Amino acid sequence: MIHSPPQSQLSSDLSDRLRRLAEAEDARLIADRRSFHANPELGWQEIETTAAIVKNLSRSGYEIVAGPAFLGDVERRGLSKDPIPGEGDTGCIAIYDTGRPGPTVCMRVDIDALPIKEATGNHAPAAQGFASRKPGVMHSCGHDGHAAIGLAVARIVKPLLKGGRGKLKLLFQPAEEGGRGGRAVADAGWMDDVDLFFAIHLGLGVPSDSAAFAVHGILANARYDVRLKGRAAHAGKSPEAGRNALLAACQISLGLHTLAQSSRPGMRLNVGLLNAGTAVNIVPEEATLTFEMRAQETADLQALEARCKDFVEATARAHGVEVSLVPGGGADGYANPEEIAEWAQGVNTATGAFGTVLPDMFFGASEDAATLASRVVARGGRGGIFVLGADLADDHHTPNFDFDEKALQKSALLCAGLIASAMDVDHVED
Amino acid sequence: MIHSPPQSQLSSDLSDRLRRLAEAEDARLIADRRSFHANPELGWQEIETTAAIVKNLSRSGYEIVAGPAFLGDVERRGLSKDPIPGEGDTGCIAIYDTGRPGPTVCMRVDIDALPIKEATGNHAPAAQGFASRKPGVMHSCGHDGHAAIGLAVARIVKPLLKGGRGKLKLLFQPAEEGGRGGRAVADAGWMDDVDLFFAIHLGLGVPSDSAAFAVHGILANARYDVRLKGRAAHAGKSPEAGRNALLAACQISLGLHTLAQSSRPGMRLNVGLLNAGTAVNIVPEEATLTFEMRAQETADLQALEARCKDFVEATARAHGVEVSLVPGGGADGYANPEEIAEWAQGVNTATGAFGTVLPDMFFGASEDAATLASRVVARGGRGGIFVLGADLADDHHTPNFDFDEKALQKSALLCAGLIASAMDVDHVED
Amino acid sequence: MIHSPPQSQLSSDLSDRLRRLAEAEDARLIADRRSFHANPELGWQEIETTAAIVKNLSRSGYEIVAGPAFLGDVERRGLSKDPIPGEGDTGCIAIYDTGRPGPTVCMRVDIDALPIKEATGNHAPAAQGFASRKPGVMHSCGHDGHAAIGLAVARIVKPLLKGGRGKLKLLFQPAEEGGRGGRAVADAGWMDDVDLFFAIHLGLGVPSDSAAFAVHGILANARYDVRLKGRAAHAGKSPEAGRNALLAACQISLGLHTLAQSSRPGMRLNVGLLNAGTAVNIVPEEATLTFEMRAQETADLQALEARCKDFVEATARAHGVEVSLVPGGGADGYANPEEIAEWAQGVNTATGAFGTVLPDMFFGASEDAATLASRVVARGGRGGIFVLGADLADDHHTPNFDFDEKALQKSALLCAGLIASAMDVDHVED
Amino acid sequence: MIHSPPQSQLSSDLSDRLRRLAEAEDARLIADRRSFHANPELGWQEIETTAAIVKNLSRSGYEIVAGPAFLGDVERRGLSKDPIPGEGDTGCIAIYDTGRPGPTVCMRVDIDALPIKEATGNHAPAAQGFASRKPGVMHSCGHDGHAAIGLAVARIVKPLLKGGRGKLKLLFQPAEEGGRGGRAVADAGWMDDVDLFFAIHLGLGVPSDSAAFAVHGILANARYDVRLKGRAAHAGKSPEAGRNALLAACQISLGLHTLAQSSRPGMRLNVGLLNAGTAVNIVPEEATLTFEMRAQETADLQALEARCKDFVEATARAHGVEVSLVPGGGADGYANPEEIAEWAQGVNTATGAFGTVLPDMFFGASEDAATLASRVVARGGRGGIFVLGADLADDHHTPNFDFDEKALQKSALLCAGLIASAMDVDHVED
Repeated sequence: MIHSPPQSQLSSDLSDRLRRLAEAEDARLIADRRSFHANPELGWQEIETTAAIVKNLSRSGYEIVAGPAFLGDVERRGLSKDPIPGEGDTGCIAIYDTGRPGPTVCMRVDIDALPIKEATGNHAPAAQGFASRKPGVMHSCGHDGHAAIGLAVARIVKPLLKGGRGKLKLLFQPAEEGGRGGRAVADAGWMDDVDLFFAIHLGLGVPSDSAAFAVHGILANARYDVRLKGRAAHAGKSPEAGRNALLAACQISLGLHTLAQSSRPGMRLNVGLLNAGTAVNIVPEEATLTFEMRAQETADLQALEARCKDFVEATARAHGVEVSLVPGGGADGYANPEEIAEWAQGVNTATGAFGTVLPDMFFGASEDAATLASRVVARGGRGGIFVLGADLADDHHTPNFDFDEKALQKSALLCAGLIASAMDVDHVED
Repeated sequence: MIHSPPQSQLSSDLSDRLRRLAEAEDARLIADRRSFHANPELGWQEIETTAAIVKNLSRSGYEIVAGPAFLGDVERRGLSKDPIPGEGDTGCIAIYDTGRPGPTVCMRVDIDALPIKEATGNHAPAAQGFASRKPGVMHSCGHDGHAAIGLAVARIVKPLLKGGRGKLKLLFQPAEEGGRGGRAVADAGWMDDVDLFFAIHLGLGVPSDSAAFAVHGILANARYDVRLKGRAAHAGKSPEAGRNALLAACQISLGLHTLAQSSRPGMRLNVGLLNAGTAVNIVPEEATLTFEMRAQETADLQALEARCKDFVEATARAHGVEVSLVPGGGADGYANPEEIAEWAQGVNTATGAFGTVLPDMFFGASEDAATLASRVVARGGRGGIFVLGADLADDHHTPNFDFDEKALQKSALLCAGLIASAMDVDHVED
Repeated sequence: MIHSPPQSQLSSDLSDRLRRLAEAEDARLIADRRSFHANPELGWQEIETTAAIVKNLSRSGYEIVAGPAFLGDVERRGLSKDPIPGEGDTGCIAIYDTGRPGPTVCMRVDIDALPIKEATGNHAPAAQGFASRKPGVMHSCGHDGHAAIGLAVARIVKPLLKGGRGKLKLLFQPAEEGGRGGRAVADAGWMDDVDLFFAIHLGLGVPSDSAAFAVHGILANARYDVRLKGRAAHAGKSPEAGRNALLAACQISLGLHTLAQSSRPGMRLNVGLLNAGTAVNIVPEEATLTFEMRAQETADLQALEARCKDFVEATARAHGVEVSLVPGGGADGYANPEEIAEWAQGVNTATGAFGTVLPDMFFGASEDAATLASRVVARGGRGGIFVLGADLADDHHTPNFDFDEKALQKSALLCAGLIASAMDVDHVED
Repeated sequence: MIHSPPQSQLSSDLSDRLRRLAEAEDARLIADRRSFHANPELGWQEIETTAAIVKNLSRSGYEIVAGPAFLGDVERRGLSKDPIPGEGDTGCIAIYDTGRPGPTVCMRVDIDALPIKEATGNHAPAAQGFASRKPGVMHSCGHDGHAAIGLAVARIVKPLLKGGRGKLKLLFQPAEEGGRGGRAVADAGWMDDVDLFFAIHLGLGVPSDSAAFAVHGILANARYDVRLKGRAAHAGKSPEAGRNALLAACQISLGLHTLAQSSRPGMRLNVGLLNAGTAVNIVPEEATLTFEMRAQETADLQALEARCKDFVEATARAHGVEVSLVPGGGADGYANPEEIAEWAQGVNTATGAFGTVLPDMFFGASEDAATLASRVVARGGRGGIFVLGADLADDHHTPNFDFDEKALQKSALLCAGLIASAMDVDHVED
């Protein structure tokens, strides 16, 4: 792997052509995004979503790998207890090899939704008729937009690629939320030949027509499923005979939250799920809870992780309750290298995609793409995670989340420009 | 309602006949009990159980009221959020009117199971092939035996009743656990003409071949469903924007349990169910929990209830979380009147059902029959709740619960004797 | 030790004489009680109280053992961290030996006060000028009355004893609260020759002019001092470096209280003291807490004790905090033997002390006298703890506690009668 | 107030002279520091410390204001419940007026210690014989060094000042810990004529021979004393009659700590003190706790403050306990203006005090000097808070804290240079 950093020069002819192509995608981008929005699926369950993507790309000239072939038999973390048919075999990758020497470039978008009940009333998706049709599941992070952008970029760059160098991989990643899919994709080997990786995220506080390329502070994270098993007892006849898994779970949850406070950057802890008990008159025998931790630096995450594991185990023991901690997903921390930020900024200037570029941005959250980027970097490649501005109706992961759809065309233009520049489309005669 | 207390005299001829009839029922009692055990259904969902009872009694000469006609449109507390078809229209009553003046006598058995996963291995029902076929649902309180006894009693007394006085009601009550069905039955008016009510419970620490008639300390109880609604937020990006319903639920659960300690008799509190959160990386917006309180005396229960409601509401407010408390089921407290204990003891002596009678017994738990008995007493009738001995493999409401099936025949004999004596079967020529 | 149970016969002459003597004590009883009330001292610190008792008895003809000679070098539990001069060498015993063969009889009264701030306003001791002069310390359990009764009984029986048999020990016990002094007294050997022991307690819900002799349900108890040592840290600069002993103490306290609920009789748990931290901007390094447990039966107490110790240790470990548990005081459980209740009831009838005798009484709390009585019983002697009625202004251990002083004379009369009958005063010529 | 920013030019002659003067102070600096270290006093109780400072400066030519005259009758927050004689009238100010027009310059040092038990063994102050002689009180933040530096600076600059312009105020501030003294000093008017204010702090992670002038992220903070009043009850006889202030305090403490987590910069919360209960067998009636909050931005602090107040009040109500929240001390947030950082850096270069200057430093804690600096800035003046490097044996606020005493001379040199430059000493002939 001896490729030099990507160059951001694009001829003005190519830039013009990209702009025209992106403009032509506008209506379809919005339609696709709304279609994804109306049909959200949780991580590892993006069955219809994947089918729609595969169908969309079917006659596009890309090689498509999907279904069980995509991730093979690598471990998938965080599947449901009773997986639905097809669960875990979601997501896909579209590949185009120019046949000429050059870098392998991978653009990643993610496609999963969240277990949130979408707002109604004035909430735009509801008012305009594309709200979630699946109760309790919602695209409230913008992955519907990411998937639509991925498809548009596939269409925009396809005609240009025959004049480029190297190989393109368009990755439609499943199960980003909770940091589960990235590791499976990397373990399946899809990053092993990638020289240049990039991923995008809409919104995150960056306003419409702005973008952040010098992104740092993408947090490392880790999550655990905790299972507690006490002893049931008749709550009226013999409460003292029980070992109460519900109360153990409550003390664990409260105590873990008191451990989160830190002077170290990006430290976070959340107990996101807790379920305990079976009937009102039985001392609860079983409880489960799931928590995640985040930190900017891996060493800090590991220190917190060690404390939390000790805390959970000892508190369970205090209540006379058996405990198991099962690691769930997790993502590495990441910060874009300077050269990658400069490259993206150059392409943005050349294409005119976003009017304003933030000098730098502290991400302050986790992003499963960091696991993919880290894997590429570990092998000597380069990686970037870019935040593309979009005004929001409400915070990510809330029922009223929505984003300014004008961001879609701009994003598709930028991404197409990044690919064109990295694959040297400009310098090769048609 | 001017009937005098029931008399326990039974002629020795009648006692002999009852004993022969009960002995003849033994194999069927055990078979019925095992069939119910293998097919447990939760409260308000005893659909197959009710169908089996109705079918069993169908050509018996009793008038059977079941289905929507049984409870009409009275309120059913504690139905599922998404009730299954038929839910709430379970249980039934079998009626026989002698046509002669005399008391209306009601014997109640209950028929529902519990959300417990039955043990395997050496656990007798598993070893002998009649363990629950429904994962996570189990007859771990003995209601399978109660239902079988109810059917046997129906068969035993039927031929005798034409020589008796008054009216017999054999009540197969749904949803006893959680104290939900009793109130619905009473509200539907089935107790309005009852002069003498009795219910039975197997086990409860009373050994095989013993029985307790002078039962007191049946606890009053009340339960609440608590719903908490906070505000979701991205746990990594903006935890401070959330209002954490999970942590509120944890502090409520722990705090409620600290309120239970009391010098007053029979005070108990249990948070039996807690569910919170939707995803590991979202500050939990919603949580639900269910708790129950018990006390020997109604005034104590009300005092605890008032404290608990205040506690829940204020703690939710502390976390910035909205709260609603929905009352679930509940049962009255009860103690058998002396005359009723004496009557039952006399019948026991006459029939020779149980070899030993406990001088008295502190029940120390709730029993939905108390609501029915209280309703009868409030109208001037009489009521008793009897505990019939059966050695247990493990405590009620635990996965290894099982009881000595020898108790079935003894119980059926006693109950048939109680009915025969109350309805004066002995004194009327055939 | 072959003495038969005490006989309750008293000649009517002797009864009359006792009544006259008790009546003559009335004013002094009230004055003494008020003096003790105004000068309360905590357990092991009853220095002025002991001095007043010793002075009072100094020319009475009793042998007085007080100061370091009283308890010698036996272990005193629950001394202050920084004991004041004289602490632990409090209490005393007054002895009279008739020189004639007969039983050794011990009457115990207790003399310590509580760390409660006495009420003001209409509260009788305040309104009548004998409220506590020591801020934050108060006789709110009635031991002021007990001490006064002890002195009156000493005076009443003294002239009679020369005509009796055996030996009398009047024990003024220190540090009853928290169950600390009883064990020290027993360990010092003062019970080793006692054939008949009795102690009294005023109030406890028994109304004026009533008394309870058939007392059962005196609870066993145990207490622990918990010391937690974590790690200090600057709360602003590096909270993650701390190991927070305060939060550990909070989770321990809440969790312990959730363990108290039980179907077993008399189970109680209380965390009575908690102190943690040194400054608002330091992660608290140290915390201490003290808790007690009670149960009617020793086996239950031991089971709860084992759970609580495990709970404390594991929860401390969860917080990364070192912990030590130091056993504090404790008392045995007790129930008066029937023959002792009958004896006291007979003496009460003979003397006419209390108009009404309760058929039985569940004590429902601990009483350090149980440790003394148990020690006597273990050696083959007999013991009783009697509750002497007194209407109360408010509960024991509250700032408004006060009792009906009419109980003093009645109590002194009864106690003198008990001694007279046990020591056979009646049968010996003057 | 029209003074231009301070200029950092110092003639090389003056710089040389300052260096020589500072070198000459070295032994005395160390001796003074050790003397203060051995005799630590808590905030508002720096009685001996103030006396030593006043004595030290008594014949120095400065006007000294100390005792009640220093702070007059302005409110002192955070005095002890039972203040010792002289408490609150500590600290002093030394003033020298050149008589020539020019700025009023104020240098602040702080003088209070912390409630920490100093380490023994190898800990240098212990090994070298200057450990705290006051059990449980320790200079574990470096204020002993600050006070010594203040005295040295007074001596160094005194001979130079007659050639300067304006007025010098050397402030020896009491009660810095907890943010109490700064506000009192400001309220007493001592900042009202100050044009240029600066304060110093040793250590804080800056290594020996380094200094940070471009300091930002000095956190705003606020603290509250919480008093809870429930209802006492006999823990054995009637626990249900109590309203448990201890358990309320525990739930408040745990809950507050769960509110601290935030994406906003510098957010912190600490419950530093908790005291509850009076005796092991009484349901605790009273509890007190003290907590502080910090944030980089005042709006964030106010938002957290509002949540915390609501939380405390509602949780107390949940337990049926009365509550009062009394605001304690607090400090403003602060960041040094660029011009002030440049001035100090220039003086450092000229004097050669510290070899390395950090490009910038995030302070990440509170500093009471921020309240003084903010007051000066609000009136149009300028202020700076500088961190002067010193290697540490352990973290601030821990028992093993100690600092490299080589920092003392360097600090005195820098501070003297700052004063000399600000008061234009260089431009006036001796």
